[in-house]
Amino acid sequence: MSTPLKIGVAGLGTVGAGVLALLERNAGIIATRAGRPITVCAVSARDRSRDRGLSLEGLRWYDDASQMATDDQIDVVVELIGGSAGPAKELVTAALGQGKAVVTANKAMLALHGTELARCAERNAATLAYEAAVAGGIPAIKALREGLAGNQLSRVTGILNGTCNYILTCMREQKREFADVLAEAQALGYAEADPTFDIDGVDAAHKMAILAALAFGQPVAFDAVHVEGIRDITATDILLAEELGYRIKLLGIAEQDDAGVTARVHPCMVPVSHPIAVVEGVDNAVVAEGDFVGRVVLEGRGAGAGPTASAVVADLIDIARGRHTPVWGTAVSELTPRQVLPMDRHRGAYYLRLMVLDRPGVIADVTGVLRDHDISLESMIQRGRSAVGAVPVVLTTHECREDAMRDALTRIGGLDAVLERPAMIRIESR
Amino acid sequence: MSTPLKIGVAGLGTVGAGVLALLERNAGIIATRAGRPITVCAVSARDRSRDRGLSLEGLRWYDDASQMATDDQIDVVVELIGGSAGPAKELVTAALGQGKAVVTANKAMLALHGTELARCAERNAATLAYEAAVAGGIPAIKALREGLAGNQLSRVTGILNGTCNYILTCMREQKREFADVLAEAQALGYAEADPTFDIDGVDAAHKMAILAALAFGQPVAFDAVHVEGIRDITATDILLAEELGYRIKLLGIAEQDDAGVTARVHPCMVPVSHPIAVVEGVDNAVVAEGDFVGRVVLEGRGAGAGPTASAVVADLIDIARGRHTPVWGTAVSELTPRQVLPMDRHRGAYYLRLMVLDRPGVIADVTGVLRDHDISLESMIQRGRSAVGAVPVVLTTHECREDAMRDALTRIGGLDAVLERPAMIRIESR
Repeated sequence: MSTPLKIGVAGLGTVGAGVLALLERNAGIIATRAGRPITVCAVSARDRSRDRGLSLEGLRWYDDASQMATDDQIDVVVELIGGSAGPAKELVTAALGQGKAVVTANKAMLALHGTELARCAERNAATLAYEAAVAGGIPAIKALREGLAGNQLSRVTGILNGTCNYILTCMREQKREFADVLAEAQALGYAEADPTFDIDGVDAAHKMAILAALAFGQPVAFDAVHVEGIRDITATDILLAEELGYRIKLLGIAEQDDAGVTARVHPCMVPVSHPIAVVEGVDNAVVAEGDFVGRVVLEGRGAGAGPTASAVVADLIDIARGRHTPVWGTAVSELTPRQVLPMDRHRGAYYLRLMVLDRPGVIADVTGVLRDHDISLESMIQRGRSAVGAVPVVLTTHECREDAMRDALTRIGGLDAVLERPAMIRIESR
Repeated sequence: MSTPLKIGVAGLGTVGAGVLALLERNAGIIATRAGRPITVCAVSARDRSRDRGLSLEGLRWYDDASQMATDDQIDVVVELIGGSAGPAKELVTAALGQGKAVVTANKAMLALHGTELARCAERNAATLAYEAAVAGGIPAIKALREGLAGNQLSRVTGILNGTCNYILTCMREQKREFADVLAEAQALGYAEADPTFDIDGVDAAHKMAILAALAFGQPVAFDAVHVEGIRDITATDILLAEELGYRIKLLGIAEQDDAGVTARVHPCMVPVSHPIAVVEGVDNAVVAEGDFVGRVVLEGRGAGAGPTASAVVADLIDIARGRHTPVWGTAVSELTPRQVLPMDRHRGAYYLRLMVLDRPGVIADVTGVLRDHDISLESMIQRGRSAVGAVPVVLTTHECREDAMRDALTRIGGLDAVLERPAMIRIESR
């Protein structure tokens, strides 16, 4: 068997430890599939003395990860430090600059600096691989960049954040409120102490920016992603969704047509018959629609040490075998910026929930506003009477424009009989 | 842009025409993703004059496909002739012998001669790619061979035959019998005039043999696959399955543990909550379970010109980029034959349906036989009375051994009060 592929691993958190464990446990099959052994030579982390449940004996230790870039004994740098800039980006840039291959799980860095890093990789004829950055163990990057490469993709949809999907699943199954489930998820370690990136949709938006760039051959554009999180979803909405035949999911959606592209992350109502509706708990899913292949659905664990390590090691095996793919699937010079359509121009169906005073004329006022904005109703549920006089009214609409809906909601929210800010969730039936 | 990749296409049926159409329609994006244009130079088919709705102008024509192998102008031969031996295998062997890359959709050939062909490819340092051979447009081969390559896989399951899945779906949705739906599928072109390979499970078994070889790193062994088709499934069984919370699917299943490997294709009852249960119509699915990645589900169109062409072109783009993977994921010398466990030693739960005379003591006789074979019941449904005196009795069992079940069924079938051969369907709940 030929020369081992020598790697340095920067960052020994959950994922880093998982990569070391996988390379050790499955060393035999990895060597046969890679055509040569993959050997860890050096590691770097903040705290050398921390017990990670694995032996670091015989491995060179770097306090400063960026020094790995100039270690002649290392063929590949595995960046698992995280953060869009700072040490992670410095290390990756330096390693690529030395012509070393880089494997990373860093979606924030790719979403914000992906084109610059691709240029750097191209200039140095180096590989930059990032299967682990999106959808954990699901080989979604490989599917889009290689497996479906013959297709013009019109649409990519995904459940890309396991924390949000876990929270929404618990809310539905246990009929509990968001804050309550979040607190429990934090206690169990399924959600971060500061959960902002997850629950406000930022993490999913990083991943969506990456998938949109790959799918449509455009420079990665995180700022063009419309982002809303799941903080405002209530147990009531989830229950009502179920009655209407939908599940509420935080989806990332990227679409292209002749007018341009859109990329957005927000809660959606998805028909229960759609494959993505039944993706529950911490699972992720990616759905791609191509002109020849039709619809392809990929589902699996979206996070955690094992699945993420699986993705990192797949990239290492590709590199060991000499399989190279340009960072964004094509040369950087071939990436074409596309017209980004603003969210205002989005067309879709909507679910609205209003808490209104239970008195005559309210429904007439609400539906009058919708009529004034050319929004037609698909269904209405009004039910029961309340002791305090407030009752929920649920409306679903036919397709209309987002700006019309927003204007209508502002007016409806201003009606005397409407007691809270109306809840609005987009319906995605495709 | 550098030199075009020049290809010859042998076989211009539905798939061949689809490949030509895809290469033409998406030539621009294919060239950017492949790093160079992919150009069809030569074609071969049985009938030159047939109208295929595409222009063959400027393409060299071969009456004898095998002559493509020695055409110096061709870099890659795309074999879409079909058949496990004969012209297809001659062409592939000759082309590999000339050091040419080969792309094929031919599952029968790979299932029966895959190791020999891999040796031939290895000897000539040539690529033999076959994404289109399994699960149509779903990048399942790429997922197993590259995307999940770091994992020890314990189990691969699949819905691998679109015709069978379509028939089972129609039977369930329209409450119709097998022969009736099959006749309609033939009239609509969804099933072949001679549907034997599809409905008797042979096609799915070819694909399962390929997936098992890839998953477990063993020489492909079609003869080791236990095969049963869907001819004996009745509308009654489908209805009863639904009542019990199952759907009936023709599954391919390959498993490995310390004792050895099993590979089998047969109708299964799958819990409706399992992702594979909701894969309907002509869709295919592949589920892989790895020690680090957990469960990954891939779903999409399993056949047809578009999806199959998508897979063929993905292979061509890999070749154009110089991405090479050994035929079976590792060198042929690394493939290890594994102990194959016979179906008799299978352990699982079973669904049994008996048509019995409606008279005292019958149930006691039947359950007595099961007790004698150490088979314990999980549930029993007996319902209604029949004018003709025959009533269906449905039993589900806890896990037991296949040989015990077979012996029990022989004895039960021999009871006077049992009017037809008992129906038996395996329950797969994992």
